Amino acid sequence: MRLCRFGDDSRLGLVEDTRVRDVSAALDVLPAYRYPLPAVDVLIENLDAVCERARSIAPEAEVHELEGLRLLSPVANPGKIIGAPLNYVKHVDEVKADAGIHHNVAAHTAPIHKMGVFLKARSALAGPGEGIRLRKLDRRNDHEVELAVVIGKPANNVAAGDALEYVAGYTIGLDLTIRGPEERCLRKSPDTYAVVGPWLVTRDEIPDPGNLDLSVSVNGVVRQDSNTRHMTMGVERLIEFASAFYTLYPGDIIMTGTPEGVSPLAPGDRIRASIEGVGAMDVQVHPASTGQIA
Amino acid sequence: MRLCRFGDDSRLGLVEDTRVRDVSAALDVLPAYRYPLPAVDVLIENLDAVCERARSIAPEAEVHELEGLRLLSPVANPGKIIGAPLNYVKHVDEVKADAGIHHNVAAHTAPIHKMGVFLKARSALAGPGEGIRLRKLDRRNDHEVELAVVIGKPANNVAAGDALEYVAGYTIGLDLTIRGPEERCLRKSPDTYAVVGPWLVTRDEIPDPGNLDLSVSVNGVVRQDSNTRHMTMGVERLIEFASAFYTLYPGDIIMTGTPEGVSPLAPGDRIRASIEGVGAMDVQVHPASTGQIA
Repeated sequence: MRLCRFGDDSRLGLVEDTRVRDVSAALDVLPAYRYPLPAVDVLIENLDAVCERARSIAPEAEVHELEGLRLLSPVANPGKIIGAPLNYVKHVDEVKADAGIHHNVAAHTAPIHKMGVFLKARSALAGPGEGIRLRKLDRRNDHEVELAVVIGKPANNVAAGDALEYVAGYTIGLDLTIRGPEERCLRKSPDTYAVVGPWLVTRDEIPDPGNLDLSVSVNGVVRQDSNTRHMTMGVERLIEFASAFYTLYPGDIIMTGTPEGVSPLAPGDRIRASIEGVGAMDVQVHPASTGQIA
Repeated sequence: MRLCRFGDDSRLGLVEDTRVRDVSAALDVLPAYRYPLPAVDVLIENLDAVCERARSIAPEAEVHELEGLRLLSPVANPGKIIGAPLNYVKHVDEVKADAGIHHNVAAHTAPIHKMGVFLKARSALAGPGEGIRLRKLDRRNDHEVELAVVIGKPANNVAAGDALEYVAGYTIGLDLTIRGPEERCLRKSPDTYAVVGPWLVTRDEIPDPGNLDLSVSVNGVVRQDSNTRHMTMGVERLIEFASAFYTLYPGDIIMTGTPEGVSPLAPGDRIRASIEGVGAMDVQVHPASTGQIA
């Protein structure tokens, strides 16, 4: 099943080929919440119930053409957005070869086993339809396309062999990055620097996340084109590694690292990111004239 | 005004000397929320309204002795927990002098102006009454006491001179840390590694956050004892620096860095952390026998 969020009022959609059925009424299975609010994404926590209700109301649901819909992140309230640095060998090579990326900071070229996973701020989250507003335009700002894993249930000290049982589904992540000397968790966390979409594909549709083509083009030119089999730590190992440090909760997102081909973005650029078995999303880098980030 | 959360059912308390008035009914000013949930702490976002109601119902409120109450983090739903590395000169000196802290990673001794601020996972949040469960016991786990700033309204590209207007109040943070080669955002993010409490002191009670004594003792032995005037980047500058990278939202917490005297913790240790003008909190490091982290 493919679930999206769309529109200015956060509708819930069931994606079928080029059309979307508005199944927002399925959200009625979720209660209203009082302070203190849950620290998890309550849709993902209750994904089975929401999907079941969505299926039952789909035949009567209003249908929209996918094209032209303003897509939001399919995960609205991730507790954590986790990133995997230098997780493709050829990307490690390009980072080591380019001072514009590594900035002579040894930690920027250290292997993932040593540096571990990092965090992106939740406030960086954006949907493809919201677009990217660049900051620090005096610096290099790069695209990084990544398979994004959405955690489905609490995962603490999970072994790699069991890890996929803790996955709710998959989506595409753009791990936007300002280059510079600071730790990744700062340079990768400006508002809109974590684009997630176009929709959530439930786990059952992707039996092997370790063999998916992924690519990104900017203004029609292919920049990154690889396959998730080239990851150093695969999805299972990333879940094992991260859950050895902290509990993963429903809605937590793991961006699994980017292949070679990262390149600078500029205001006005148009990005298209694709992952086999998930789909594709178009993301606009807002022109500089749209001014300060909200 | 001093607001705490306490008990197994998250009561709201007004702290008066050694007693707490249960003003949970003041939370009625907050509505119920439907998915997608707000990405801010809704109590902090509506702090003035909650405080006004709390004041009005306080005379009739049930009174508890503070001692013995199980205190929770006064901020229940922080969007971001931000940390300031190496923000006291003498702490920088001790880090540089001790391979058990710096692990021969250059980034671990680089100045805050170069490395910038970092993130701790929201899932690391704990109240003093919940205690600390250590992970990676084969490694050194240190206490770091810090003045914690709670953001009160959205702050984007804020100048240092205006920064305190964006502060809701202050509390104490324990930035628990596993030593090792990984980036800070991983080593400082296990569950319970961000202890916040004992309560929120509203901004009006602390006109100058840049001149407060702070200390921590472990099992009755003083380990850290300094003053916030020794910070390299003060509260105002930290808000300016962070808000130049991303928007700060109501409930975001900035832990402002720790002075010299960090030392290893062990299961069973008892921590007492104090900051002038805020108060003191006692935090138990759970014995190893309590087993796996929930």
